[in-house]
Amino acid sequence: MKRTAFYVSDGTGITAETLGHSMLSQFGGIKFDQVTLPYVISNETTHDVVQKINRAAEQDGATPIVFSTLVNDEHREILARCNGLVLDMFAVFLGPLEQELGVRSSHTVGQSHSIRDHEAYRIRIDAVHFALDNDDGARTRHYDQADVILIGVSRSGKTPTSLYLALQFGLYTANYPLTEDDFDDLRLPDCLVPHKDKLFGLTINPDRLMAIRNERKAGSRYASPRQCEMEVRALEAIYNKHSIPFMDATDMSIEEISTRILAAKGLKRRLQ
Amino acid sequence: MKRTAFYVSDGTGITAETLGHSMLSQFGGIKFDQVTLPYVISNETTHDVVQKINRAAEQDGATPIVFSTLVNDEHREILARCNGLVLDMFAVFLGPLEQELGVRSSHTVGQSHSIRDHEAYRIRIDAVHFALDNDDGARTRHYDQADVILIGVSRSGKTPTSLYLALQFGLYTANYPLTEDDFDDLRLPDCLVPHKDKLFGLTINPDRLMAIRNERKAGSRYASPRQCEMEVRALEAIYNKHSIPFMDATDMSIEEISTRILAAKGLKRRLQ
Repeated sequence: MKRTAFYVSDGTGITAETLGHSMLSQFGGIKFDQVTLPYVISNETTHDVVQKINRAAEQDGATPIVFSTLVNDEHREILARCNGLVLDMFAVFLGPLEQELGVRSSHTVGQSHSIRDHEAYRIRIDAVHFALDNDDGARTRHYDQADVILIGVSRSGKTPTSLYLALQFGLYTANYPLTEDDFDDLRLPDCLVPHKDKLFGLTINPDRLMAIRNERKAGSRYASPRQCEMEVRALEAIYNKHSIPFMDATDMSIEEISTRILAAKGLKRRLQ
Repeated sequence: MKRTAFYVSDGTGITAETLGHSMLSQFGGIKFDQVTLPYVISNETTHDVVQKINRAAEQDGATPIVFSTLVNDEHREILARCNGLVLDMFAVFLGPLEQELGVRSSHTVGQSHSIRDHEAYRIRIDAVHFALDNDDGARTRHYDQADVILIGVSRSGKTPTSLYLALQFGLYTANYPLTEDDFDDLRLPDCLVPHKDKLFGLTINPDRLMAIRNERKAGSRYASPRQCEMEVRALEAIYNKHSIPFMDATDMSIEEISTRILAAKGLKRRLQ
């Protein structure tokens, strides 16, 4: 039996998707077709949404699950009449919140992921450009401006983590690859020494590293078991020798690596 | 009066934050101190969370708002006894979902933003590296692999949007800057012509462009009113002449730009 899950929103749909993914991840055995319907901001588009849901109900022979973050009362009433199980975020949480805060909410559509102010936008863009300019050790002279400097071997997740920290939290994140030159004497590269307190190390299971590198350069020395093992062993020796906090990121998502670094380093986000 | 909002989670905290930001954005007049408490996975850490909430309640003289995505029943019961208004995502949505789906949920902690499989991780990382390699017109020979190619003037939001599309949806996104050379005869650059169906244009209000560029190079020709106006006018003429779909991204967040492009181009995400 196929099930369809709908994410219905008057904005980007990101909140509805996040909520829905989170709930559905608790039902691992069931496969869902997922459909995001963003920018639903009129009676007419809401009626279209209802039609789509009803069509899926018919085709699947099963009730679709509908995660909704619609704010407008009229649109929510229209949606409520569809042949799906509607899980309406505002219906359940807005009442208690209004009561506790003692004010009516604004019922403004598309608020959540809209641009709040140009200042927040600027912080975010600057952080992204900082991450790009200071990716993979390309430049080291701006490390005094960095909030955190990620280190690790090639393909251990430094770049995507840097970009995520920049985009999501506005953090100035640099990253620097440790290579064979550094492994001979377990010295910290000179450019990192003055910024030791900003360093955070990533490590990875050598077998996993090998698999990742083989996808890129199959059969190369770079991807060989011996090389990967040697690099990871030396890397962890450097972390230990210089008391650099580090984490094994082998089985972590980028979100998990990022939020754990945030917690471990006690970083203050520049964006809320 | 100060209010504190807590985001409590057994995982990254991203779902709780997303839900909470979305709800609180409906109460624009109230200022919240926001505290994320991720990786709450034991009775002990849950008790610590309760203490933090109770301390905030005392200090603020106002009930804290607590957005929780805790899954474990025991931890949820402990949290429920705090002096905050607990908005518990699983409490309200899990029951109806279990009933509709006819199965008990797994009650597994930290599911939502955990790594699902190595394949999904690979897609994401590859997309990020594609975006980096094909940023700002650096390379054009891989455009056959691109899902979408963003075009626009310098500092119109192409790079952060490309990275967001890669990180969030696994889309292979290239971006190419249109410059003065292209504005003389309103021709589409040769490298873009074979990939016309993949193009999406961004435009921006000239005053806003000027403000952004002035933050970088104050007083330069590049940031002058005349230059910014000329570039935007020529840019839109190119879009119109070559029937390239485009969008004014002046007042849009990166999320909004990205999800609107997804919808406008009918792109199929590589990651759900």
